[in-house]
Amino acid sequence: MKKFINEPAAVLADSLKGVEAAHPDLRVDHENRVIYRGTPTRPGKVALLSGGGTGHEPLHGGFVGTGMLDAACAGEVFTSPTPDQMLAATQAVDSGAGVLHIVKNYTGDVLNFEMAAELAAAEGVRVESIIVNDDVAVEDSTFTAGRRGVGTTVLLEKIVGAAAEEGYDLDAIVALAERVNQSGRSMGVALTSCTVPAAGKPTFDLPDDEMEVGVGIHGEPGRHRVPLASAKQVAAMLVEPILHDIDASGDAIVMLNGLGGTPLIELYLMYGEVAALLEEAGVNAARCLVGNYITSLDMAGCSLTVLKADDELLRLWDAPVVTPGLRWGA
Amino acid sequence: MKKFINEPAAVLADSLKGVEAAHPDLRVDHENRVIYRGTPTRPGKVALLSGGGTGHEPLHGGFVGTGMLDAACAGEVFTSPTPDQMLAATQAVDSGAGVLHIVKNYTGDVLNFEMAAELAAAEGVRVESIIVNDDVAVEDSTFTAGRRGVGTTVLLEKIVGAAAEEGYDLDAIVALAERVNQSGRSMGVALTSCTVPAAGKPTFDLPDDEMEVGVGIHGEPGRHRVPLASAKQVAAMLVEPILHDIDASGDAIVMLNGLGGTPLIELYLMYGEVAALLEEAGVNAARCLVGNYITSLDMAGCSLTVLKADDELLRLWDAPVVTPGLRWGA
Repeated sequence: MKKFINEPAAVLADSLKGVEAAHPDLRVDHENRVIYRGTPTRPGKVALLSGGGTGHEPLHGGFVGTGMLDAACAGEVFTSPTPDQMLAATQAVDSGAGVLHIVKNYTGDVLNFEMAAELAAAEGVRVESIIVNDDVAVEDSTFTAGRRGVGTTVLLEKIVGAAAEEGYDLDAIVALAERVNQSGRSMGVALTSCTVPAAGKPTFDLPDDEMEVGVGIHGEPGRHRVPLASAKQVAAMLVEPILHDIDASGDAIVMLNGLGGTPLIELYLMYGEVAALLEEAGVNAARCLVGNYITSLDMAGCSLTVLKADDELLRLWDAPVVTPGLRWGA
Repeated sequence: MKKFINEPAAVLADSLKGVEAAHPDLRVDHENRVIYRGTPTRPGKVALLSGGGTGHEPLHGGFVGTGMLDAACAGEVFTSPTPDQMLAATQAVDSGAGVLHIVKNYTGDVLNFEMAAELAAAEGVRVESIIVNDDVAVEDSTFTAGRRGVGTTVLLEKIVGAAAEEGYDLDAIVALAERVNQSGRSMGVALTSCTVPAAGKPTFDLPDDEMEVGVGIHGEPGRHRVPLASAKQVAAMLVEPILHDIDASGDAIVMLNGLGGTPLIELYLMYGEVAALLEEAGVNAARCLVGNYITSLDMAGCSLTVLKADDELLRLWDAPVVTPGLRWGA
């Protein structure tokens, strides 16, 4: 295992030190492993909290800041944070207008956020949840009942974050989050496995001449293994299952996401292929992201997310955002 | 070789299609392989042109836009662009106030930019050049006489880009660029080789238990190979040679850069270690970047750049920038 780490057990704690050193406008609670904005939630603003296992950076901690999340709870690598962490963060970010939990659909995350929501409710905090389940690859998987939550989470955190800044109340925020989740679909492909530091070896074996199509962000199996193919062919393997699942014609927000070990030149090359296929299908990529946004440690691979977008979603997308991972308009 | 490409010979052309599709505010000249801003250089503004071999994305094309470059010439992977490309771009961006060529110190780039500058001068364009040579690792190397140009290039393009927007004239731009180059130092380390698409196999062999300390951004040899070490030890291997070479006490702009295949969690972890060592040495990381800015295809590794910065450099650093690779304040 070749990684820039000290000891495997300290990866999360050590990386949080780096986040704190790099971003003086964020605040890191090292005991509870929560990344907060540097200033408290504005009274009357709905607070947005997300979290999950570490290893998907910049998700979620890199999306804390003006126009996106109020806080993010970090679990160990590929391991859900605990209800205690989530409860501490929920109470800390609530300004009286309530809190939305943004949860990727993995069994551990879902159960722990549910428990944290119940505990917070008992303390008088109004909490609602959105469970993101946008991965068209498989129904049930290693860590999931139902579809996995992947790339749409990034777009949802941005759009709903802008709505919260604008003053949407909690009911409106929940309705918007559900609409974003229903409008987004994702599909991924891996060229290599990732290596979890505590395991010290690749999560799965993938022969030199094969790809895993439909892979999850923890290296869960996908739909099938196929021989290595050209970028053009891979683009079709990503676009077709998404467009089979949703009518995305008209405007869309498109993300061509790297899984951590794939360089930007390949992501741009893939984006070019994807954009051509989407255009043929009548999908207008009105906005796009190309880069590493929801990763799987050092996995070589990429994922495509297509979010059908109306004027409201595009307006919220364009609103200012100031976070380590996404920044524009301010 | 596992890469998202069509055929090795088409990597550059195909990736430029993706850049064009992703960034409607940029303009791509596919014939000359130049990425331009979408709008012509404002009359009276000094134009900034850079370029080099492909494979270092987002450098340089990802730094074209308001507050940074006016254009970037793309060569084939790890291969200098030609004087013809550079001449076309130089003439296109000149608004009458002259053009600065920002050149990383590699023999091919230096010779070709020199020839382009001569040809442009013969056409009546005033051209000056800055040759960036900030890598403390080695004196001469595979593709270089003297020190290699690496991470300081990113910071220079940002700072000098802001000065050009502010209206600095060409003489002042050259003086500033020289000062930035003299104030910046870099050092890199590789955990793995990269794989050039046309070669189809890793550029060098690096055993599973060794690192290349002082590696270049094309996989050129560094200072020495050492056994794998902890992040804390690696941080010292980067910080010490830099601080041995320059007194960086006081304010600095610090970049902990990923070489393409290293995930963000490791870069943050490394930044935490580096920041602690710099603080001990009296260096105040007044600003920082953590992420992939000057890469080496899919190489796993990182580099550290420390730029000693006074108030003028910090002011120019903070000025608005709108490019695919760096964006803030607008």
